[in-house]
Amino acid sequence: MINVVKIGGNVIDDPQALDAFLMDFVALEGPKILVHGGGKEASRLSKEMGLTPTMIEGRRVTDAHTLGIVTMVYAGLINKRIVAKLQALGCDAVGLTGADGNLIPATRRPAKPVDYGFVGDINPALVNTEFIASLLDRGRVPVCCAICHDTQGTLLNCNADSVAGAVAIGASPIAPVRLTYCFEKPGVMTDVDDERSVIPLVTAASFRQLKEDGIVASGMIPKLQNALLSAEAGVEEVRICRASDLRDDGGTIIRME
Amino acid sequence: MINVVKIGGNVIDDPQALDAFLMDFVALEGPKILVHGGGKEASRLSKEMGLTPTMIEGRRVTDAHTLGIVTMVYAGLINKRIVAKLQALGCDAVGLTGADGNLIPATRRPAKPVDYGFVGDINPALVNTEFIASLLDRGRVPVCCAICHDTQGTLLNCNADSVAGAVAIGASPIAPVRLTYCFEKPGVMTDVDDERSVIPLVTAASFRQLKEDGIVASGMIPKLQNALLSAEAGVEEVRICRASDLRDDGGTIIRME
Repeated sequence: MINVVKIGGNVIDDPQALDAFLMDFVALEGPKILVHGGGKEASRLSKEMGLTPTMIEGRRVTDAHTLGIVTMVYAGLINKRIVAKLQALGCDAVGLTGADGNLIPATRRPAKPVDYGFVGDINPALVNTEFIASLLDRGRVPVCCAICHDTQGTLLNCNADSVAGAVAIGASPIAPVRLTYCFEKPGVMTDVDDERSVIPLVTAASFRQLKEDGIVASGMIPKLQNALLSAEAGVEEVRICRASDLRDDGGTIIRME
Repeated sequence: MINVVKIGGNVIDDPQALDAFLMDFVALEGPKILVHGGGKEASRLSKEMGLTPTMIEGRRVTDAHTLGIVTMVYAGLINKRIVAKLQALGCDAVGLTGADGNLIPATRRPAKPVDYGFVGDINPALVNTEFIASLLDRGRVPVCCAICHDTQGTLLNCNADSVAGAVAIGASPIAPVRLTYCFEKPGVMTDVDDERSVIPLVTAASFRQLKEDGIVASGMIPKLQNALLSAEAGVEEVRICRASDLRDDGGTIIRME
């Protein structure tokens, strides 16, 4: 079993929570892969450099200057901090973008109807399984950020949840994959203010219903779409849970049916 | 023969020169490794963020904030730009710091007599030869920046010439290594204003003499020291030349005797 774990910006922005999470991650047995976001630090740095981040439907508009900033923050600062911390914990981490080893080719999103700039979409079928296998075979732990490339020399800013899903799909031919989306909530909830309202199982059919009924929050919809896409493409287990529950049960399991 | 090539900030700062250099690099046959600096972009970004770079004897003083900036610029912006460009040229580049795969452990420099902050020195004997071999074996091309780690979770800013020398030494058990330091001059010159004054060969003995006579410029001394250290440690060929001469003869050969 290969564990693919996605960790979001809320945990990354909190040094104590990050350290605790990384210790849990290291304790996972067997081959594993970490995928991280880091949007808040990019927004903070953009502001320091006089830019105001523009978001449309939760996605950052990435002009050339912003692409430079997110590349610096995601692929540089956050990725290498995490790699150094994991190495200190005895975990042989290797930090990667989708450009490194052509791990994740992406396609620049069409400029219509909304021009997101240097933003890429991923075809999970193109993830470089051989590269992942060659690292895992030697006990290495890929640590992936959401900067990919168009294979023509241009870096592209991608969605970290999509990267996690794509990496999980790309690793599936090697061994069964367990994909865990970690965030600050205990799972997908029917009431965002009530932590007891976690939905234990979401299927393709119940997801449609939850969307129709307006029960899942808008930020959760792309995460669930990525989760379902991964389940459909052969990822054995998909779960959304609180970062501190990584090694425990709980949270929301996502299955096709 | 493994080619290890170091490229400095002057070429990196000039997009046309960089593209021409990368095409020459890609044309080198057989396994190869690129090591890059990038000091000017870090200085520019530091200024944009209100910091004034402090240099002592050509080495940047690296406080915690500066470490973040150099990590962003070297390991993020410059490294990933180069990786994306190489991938577009059909070269299977993988961008790395010394923390990734524990490629290059470093030791933080003692705070006396000068406190350089988060600056590291490298013991070439500790370079991770197995990791380099595992990448080269599959036709991958490591692209290394000069950010290393202390193996205890802290990143360290190292000298890119030292990184190139250490990587060349670390690759030598795999196959004979040719180490080429590329920069904007045609080689080591007795008169910095006369490009015809290139010294074709520097040995350990002639280096001592050149230093005593005050003939080599101060910026060249650490480069020559690194070159001689590499030659002494078993690197088969060491050369200092102009970036555009990478595929030609010329420049200065460095040998122990």
